[in-house]
Amino acid sequence: MTLTVPYDPNNIFGRILRGEVPAAKVWEDDHVLAFMDAFPQAEGHILVISKTSTARTLLDVEPDVLARMAVATRRTARAVVKALAPEGFLIAQLNGAASGQTVFHLHFHIIPRWADVPMKGHGEAPMGKPETLLALADRIAAALD
Amino acid sequence: MTLTVPYDPNNIFGRILRGEVPAAKVWEDDHVLAFMDAFPQAEGHILVISKTSTARTLLDVEPDVLARMAVATRRTARAVVKALAPEGFLIAQLNGAASGQTVFHLHFHIIPRWADVPMKGHGEAPMGKPETLLALADRIAAALD
Repeated sequence: MTLTVPYDPNNIFGRILRGEVPAAKVWEDDHVLAFMDAFPQAEGHILVISKTSTARTLLDVEPDVLARMAVATRRTARAVVKALAPEGFLIAQLNGAASGQTVFHLHFHIIPRWADVPMKGHGEAPMGKPETLLALADRIAAALD
Repeated sequence: MTLTVPYDPNNIFGRILRGEVPAAKVWEDDHVLAFMDAFPQAEGHILVISKTSTARTLLDVEPDVLARMAVATRRTARAVVKALAPEGFLIAQLNGAASGQTVFHLHFHIIPRWADVPMKGHGEAPMGKPETLLALADRIAAALD
């Protein structure tokens, strides 16, 4: 995979960060934003992104930004587990189209799992209803430490 | 998922850390170990673990340990990309049996991807040959920054 492709500020997450596109936000601070994936592969599917970095993938992210994102992902996952009581959860982070990456703004997926509920494929899940995603975001936000 | 299950020091990664079981190590320092997955889902499949924490999942890991693991995963992934030139790669971190987690010592998977090579399923991949894994570990170690 090539490391020389420039960041495109008009990617969908860049537009969410600029407020040009709505998102069901769970929480944010000056560094990170956690919000509901608009195409949830399972109930409670969340994305965690940096608000400051223009990294496209894990390869080009600044180590301090990555460390903050990882800790923010942990915090968010703990709230998801408290709020939704999944039987497990998957953290996934895709790099390059060959891995399934579709938005080239570095992001971590938090995907709750239940043993008897198959996970929908990345890029195959239907769009979530905004009111459903907003209600989930509120429930998860209420469970944050 | 329950948060109250104690860490079992006889899990396979604990045994690797104590030198009771061999592993194809890529690199290590006082905090982390990166080694080839013995059941690679793709060529160059690596695991990154903490050498100091007894966290079973992302939920119970200490934030500073997690931050080190994330940065170590990035460093290792950069070397994998230099050494093997995959078209992409997946970072995966499984929590709870319902997510597919089989070893309850927190670990990050780095799985190289090529668009025309299907990824083997977690728990479905055959064991790698030790000499193949050791040769890959050497190639990847040589590409570390």
